[in-house]
Order: sequence, then C-alpha cells, then structure tokens
Amino acid sequence: MFESGIIVAPATATGGAIAVVRMSGDGAIECCDRVFRGRRPLAECRSHTVHYGEIVDGHRVVDDVLVALFRAPHSYTGEDSVEVSMHGSQYIVSEVIRLLCSSGARLAAAGEFSARAMAAGRIDLSQAEAVADLIAADSRASHAIAATQMRGGYSALLEELREQLVNITALLELELDFSEEDVEFADREQLQRMLRTTDEVVVRLMESFRVGNAIREGVNVAIVGAPNVGKSTLLNRLVGDDRAMVSSIAGTTRDTIEECVTIDDVRFRFVDTAGLHATDDMLERMGIERTEQAIRRARVVVYVTEPSSGVGELPMLSAEQVLMVVVNKMDTTDRRDVEGALYISARENQGIDELRTALRQTVDTDGAYRGDVIVSNLRHFESLARAHKDIEMAVAALSSGVSEELLAEDIRGAISALAEITGSVTNDDILQTIFSRFCIGK
Amino acid sequence: MFESGIIVAPATATGGAIAVVRMSGDGAIECCDRVFRGRRPLAECRSHTVHYGEIVDGHRVVDDVLVALFRAPHSYTGEDSVEVSMHGSQYIVSEVIRLLCSSGARLAAAGEFSARAMAAGRIDLSQAEAVADLIAADSRASHAIAATQMRGGYSALLEELREQLVNITALLELELDFSEEDVEFADREQLQRMLRTTDEVVVRLMESFRVGNAIREGVNVAIVGAPNVGKSTLLNRLVGDDRAMVSSIAGTTRDTIEECVTIDDVRFRFVDTAGLHATDDMLERMGIERTEQAIRRARVVVYVTEPSSGVGELPMLSAEQVLMVVVNKMDTTDRRDVEGALYISARENQGIDELRTALRQTVDTDGAYRGDVIVSNLRHFESLARAHKDIEMAVAALSSGVSEELLAEDIRGAISALAEITGSVTNDDILQTIFSRFCIGK
Repeated sequence: MFESGIIVAPATATGGAIAVVRMSGDGAIECCDRVFRGRRPLAECRSHTVHYGEIVDGHRVVDDVLVALFRAPHSYTGEDSVEVSMHGSQYIVSEVIRLLCSSGARLAAAGEFSARAMAAGRIDLSQAEAVADLIAADSRASHAIAATQMRGGYSALLEELREQLVNITALLELELDFSEEDVEFADREQLQRMLRTTDEVVVRLMESFRVGNAIREGVNVAIVGAPNVGKSTLLNRLVGDDRAMVSSIAGTTRDTIEECVTIDDVRFRFVDTAGLHATDDMLERMGIERTEQAIRRARVVVYVTEPSSGVGELPMLSAEQVLMVVVNKMDTTDRRDVEGALYISARENQGIDELRTALRQTVDTDGAYRGDVIVSNLRHFESLARAHKDIEMAVAALSSGVSEELLAEDIRGAISALAEITGSVTNDDILQTIFSRFCIGK
Repeated sequence: MFESGIIVAPATATGGAIAVVRMSGDGAIECCDRVFRGRRPLAECRSHTVHYGEIVDGHRVVDDVLVALFRAPHSYTGEDSVEVSMHGSQYIVSEVIRLLCSSGARLAAAGEFSARAMAAGRIDLSQAEAVADLIAADSRASHAIAATQMRGGYSALLEELREQLVNITALLELELDFSEEDVEFADREQLQRMLRTTDEVVVRLMESFRVGNAIREGVNVAIVGAPNVGKSTLLNRLVGDDRAMVSSIAGTTRDTIEECVTIDDVRFRFVDTAGLHATDDMLERMGIERTEQAIRRARVVVYVTEPSSGVGELPMLSAEQVLMVVVNKMDTTDRRDVEGALYISARENQGIDELRTALRQTVDTDGAYRGDVIVSNLRHFESLARAHKDIEMAVAALSSGVSEELLAEDIRGAISALAEITGSVTNDDILQTIFSRFCIGK
C-alpha cells in the first residue's frame, strides 16, 4: 500500500516547549547520523538510549537535540527508528525535516508509521484504529474503550470467534473429502449449537455498539413538546448558559438548536426543537419537520409538558430509543398525576439534577470501565452485522439440509467479515482510506 | 524565586500523534515509578535510557508510554528528570499529569524548567531568554541570532567585558589602599585606553540592536506621499494581494493599513498611509496625523511620487531612518529626472523586485548568519546603554582628575549593568517577569 524507504514526520503539534520528529525505516539511524553531531555516531549506540548533540547543516548548527534510538524489531514500527527531540519552533522542525529528507528520508504519509507497525505484525488493523481513537479520546469512557481495543482485547476475542468458525468449516470440508462414502463427521445438531454459540458473541458485540457509539460520538437527545412548555429554558438549564433564545411567545424556536454537555464523562448533544403542534404557517411547518428528523436521530427523546396540559400525543419511537416524559413548571402546582414522569421546574432549577442522572443512566459505561470489549467503530459494526447474517444463513441452511458446499460458503463469508475488522483480508483501498484519517506522524 | 520540589508540565502542544510530559526535581524518577509499570523500576535504570511500559491508575492502564530517564547532573535542569512520551490525547496528558501530581510532583510554572537550569548554573539568563526566542524564531535570521545567544556566544563576550572592567577597578582599588603614599599604579592614559576599548565593544553591541531588533520584530516601512500617487497599489504589489482598497479618488486611504511580508527571511511590516497634503477636512487630518506617527515609528520610509509632480517636501527623518524615493507610473513617461530615485510602475508590476531588493539591503543579516553576536532583546540593549553611559562618565572623570572612589563607582555601575544581562545581579522580581513570558514546560 505504502512505499518502502525511510519515513520522517513531525510527531508533535507545534506550539510547545519541545517538538519531536520521528523517523523509521531500514537505515534511519545512519540517515540521522549524516546530520547529527554528538559524542559518537548513533550507529554505534545501543537501542533505547538517548543522545545529546546537534543537528547541523554543514557548519551551521540548527539546534541542540536529544535523539532517542530504537533498533528493529524493538520499535513501534518494528523497524530501526529515531526520535529527535528539539526546541519547539516551527522553523527548527521544518529545517530538521528538510535536512533528514536531504540525507535519505522522505516525508511520511498520514498513518504511515501505524501502517508499518501493522505490516510488521505488531498490531492489527483494529488496534491501529484504536490508536487514532485513543488520540481523539476526550473522556474517561471513550478512552477506556479505545485503550481496551488498542491493547488487543478485541482482537483476541475476534480470533476466538474465527477459530470456532474455522473448526466448523474444517469438519464440513472433511465430510466433502469423504462425500462418496456419505459419512457425517459432524453431528448436525452439534454444528448448529456451535454456530449459535458463536453468533451469540457476535450479537453481543453488535449490541455493545449502541453504548460504544454513544460514548464515542456522544448521545443525541431531542427535547420535544408543545409550544411554550419551556423546552428552551430547560436546554439552558442543562447546558448552563443562555444559548437558546427564550421568550414567552409560542414558537420562538423556529430552528433546531444543538448544545453539548458532558455528564459524568459521557457527552450528550441536546437538540432543542420547535414545538410539535398542528400549524399552517410555512416556516413553522419546516421547523416541525426538522423536529421530526431530530427525533429520528435521537437516542433519547425528552418529551416536555406542563401540568395544565397533561400528556398529549407522544412521538413514535423505535425500540432502541428511550422516552422520558418531563413535566415542567412544577413550581406552579402540586399536581403530580403523570405516571413515570419527572417533575421539574426549569425556571427554578428544580429536578434538573435528577433529569441529568436519568439521562446519564441511559448509557451504561460500567463495561467500558471494567475493560469489556465494546464496539465503537461503525466499520466494525457493519462487518459484525455481515458475519451475523452469514452465520444465520448457515444455521438456516443446516436445518433445511442444504449441501456442505453452500454451508461452508456461508461460514467462510462470516470468517472473512470478521477478518476485515483486524485487517487480515482487507484490500489496499480500504486500508488507505482508514490510514488517511490518521494524523501525520502516527 | 520558585519553590523547590518535583515539577511536572506538558512539554508539547496537544494535537499531535504523541505528547511529552516532562518532570524534574530530586526524587522525580521515584515519583514516576509510583505510576509506571515497566519491565523493571526506573530507579534501577541508567541515565539516558528509554523504557517502554504503562502509566497506571491503580489497576487501570492510562496509556502505553516511553519514559526517557536523565539523572542529575546530566539533564536540562541539572536535576533528575523524566520525559514521558504518550499518545497525543489531551485526556491522556491530563490524566498522566494528575497521577504524577498525586504521587509527589506539582505543576510547573511558566519557565520554571529553564529557571532551574539557570539556578544550577547550566545556562545564564541571556541563554534562557534565547531559548524562548529560539522557540519563537520564525525565520533563518531570527533563528541564527537566538541560536548564537543560546550557545553562549553573547555570554562569553559579556564575560570578557566584565573582566576588563574588573581589572580596571582592581587597579583603582589598589591605589585607594595605598592612597596615603600617593602612588599611581595605573597610568591615567592607559586606564582611559582600556575603558575606551571596552566601550567600543559595548557600542558595537548597541549598534547591532538596530539589525537584531529588525530581524526579531520585523522592519517597519511607512509608504508615504501625496494623494493619488499609487501608494495603495504599490502596497498591494508588495504584499501580493488586494488588501488595500484602491480607487482613483484622492484620499481613499483614510486610515493606516498594515501588511507583513517576508523578504529573504526578514519580515517587513508595510504601513500604507493617508496622503500627505494640506487639508481642512477633519477626518483627513486625523489620517495625516496617523501618517506622521507611522513615519516616526518606521525604520524605512518609502516616499512615493509620480513623474508629473516631481519630489515635493520630503518628510523629516532621524539619522537612523532610511528614506527611499520612488517614482511611480514610469509606464506613462520616459522622464527619469529625480536623482537617486527608484522608478517603478506599481500598476504594470515594473521595478517592484528592485524595490524589494533595496528594502532587503537595509537589513544586513550577514553577521547573524556568520554567527556574530547580535543584540535583539530590548532589555539587553537598555543594560548596554546604561553600561555605556557609566563608562563614558568614568572616561570624563579620568580626564577631569576626579577621585578614585567616584571613578570606581562609575565602573562598578557598568559592571553591574552588564551583569544584569546574564542575570548574575538581577533581582527576583525581574527574573519572575522574564520567566513568566516563557511557555509552560520550558
């Protein structure tokens, strides 16, 4: 996918006290020696040592640096590698990279270091992806999922599933070899049990995507309800500022307004919507359409009403969506007659903490903190879904007494779908797309 | 000035593939060991080695890291130091710093690492300042000046000057000891020669500030001239875009407009000004006032005229300012009768490169590239000016036959002024101000 050679790239963002440039590839240490002036050549030094010296351009000293040396295979990429730590100036970084390039290296493409680590068998594709997720992680929960994946917890589980499926195909293929003798090495019921056990794990992983995706991408919450029940005031309370324009005129919120808030390490994206009500006003109807869209996209729908109106028509939700009925303006009355509802006063800031807690409880992060494998990557989810479909087809085929060839075909499909996750059967185009989303220097 | 203890800070900006956290102080290695899980404790490892392992929070793994170890006195600060290299996530960096703080470190103040390097005698104040300049350097020229200063070229020269002055006071003090015998150990003329030689170097350093400051801060160029001679068109040509509003109506440019352009590694800050002409219009007069301000601040004044008008009244400049007379609209005539003027056509892009070259030649960067000591710091310039004044007073005192006590007093003043540059007699308040301008982690 990528070309060979010595690659070099800045590994840190600019603007700090120090900057690090990393280089990897056969001959990287000698390449660095050509522009490094230390007590002795790096080529003579041992792996995992740090050397003080100067990067020079002929007689001109570009900077005092520390060079850390990593010899193959004991580096991230599995190749000879060098990390040059210098003063954090953009000018110095570009000069050092220019000099290293003129002495044999070339600028690395995005993700090329991780691609090499994968090519060397040090990490698989899902682990490489976890590295990118880890860098992007902004909360304990998203960090925990990425860390488990990076440490190979997910890869090990996938390998187990793959082995189970390979065992099943081996039995089937054995039968094919002896097909003329008409023997059954594998009891059909036993095969079905094996497939079902495997499928259970696949389905469990697929189900974890709901939480995983919520943790990684944030939880969409739609705040809906009739006009003037206090949806915008509630949003302001939840996000703690005056983002939404609030007025007592019904229909103030024409468009949807989004605000993000982190509750106990999970990010929630609140969408305040136009009031749901019958109207002929063109603009208002467009607002309501957007509200309906927001509801479809939401994981949690907070339906706001007020004591005098009771609960009107609730929005239609899918089985995966959570509905919370909230009665606002509890400060104006003592009536508490809506069953299962949360009573709040957005204006008086009452019941808001309870609502926050209820929202947070819709995302169960215990598994992530415990180190369970949780799928958070859409690409992985889709591969799992394909594997699940193939296994289901195999199970159905088994009971309908289909031929071993077709059966084996389905199972091989499932094996290949799982292998795509770790990258063992992924084609170069897909790899290139995945790595191009990495940052330079990773 | 700063408190003791183990200090920790992010050393890199966030947003890169990796991030580095640095820690320094007595016990820093043991402090890191409390949250590091590697093959063996860091405390057992040698200086200048790198160790792969995990930063842990109890059982929870925060990240896979590489830890580089530097034992006192072989580190930047001269103390035991540790650099932890991790995945470049803001969350991970803050977790690692939190853990290190809970195991004995405290967050470093801005510049505190450099302040410790200075306290340990590894660098002096002017070198510490050069580190900050080096990080901010954005061109070869500014980098060259900072690098020379950081490598101690400037400090060595200042030490020489100080020694010469100390020798002179030693001679004078010897005379004071034997004052009753009325002997002169030092020939008065010889003393004067010694002082003059020293002063010559001080004056040369002061003079280098003109170039040094221009390289460090950029060169202010005021473009002035009568209305409608094409000043804005010229500015557009020089900066290569359509920043200034151009029209054929005289007086279009009411306010001053600034644009920066780097010519061959030196930054020029062009100020386009309102036309200089007599007017009663209130707004225009305010514009002209600002033009006069811009002229006072400029290092180079480009006076633009057109063939038909000839050269009117030129602005009054100081001896240090450079005036360039430019005749625009040379495409409309063949007349070349203004002596020493540059003929250009801003509209036709003729003569612009020659103007750029002429501007660039007003800043002589050869010395900087050669590694000469060039003063670029206003604080240093002011100390040099004080030293110069004291030496001049001593020279005058010598010829007027003043007492040895007063003479020695002047020379001690000069010594102290020079010592302020390297920080050997600077008080804590000044140090604190200087270091607070550093970034965290440096």
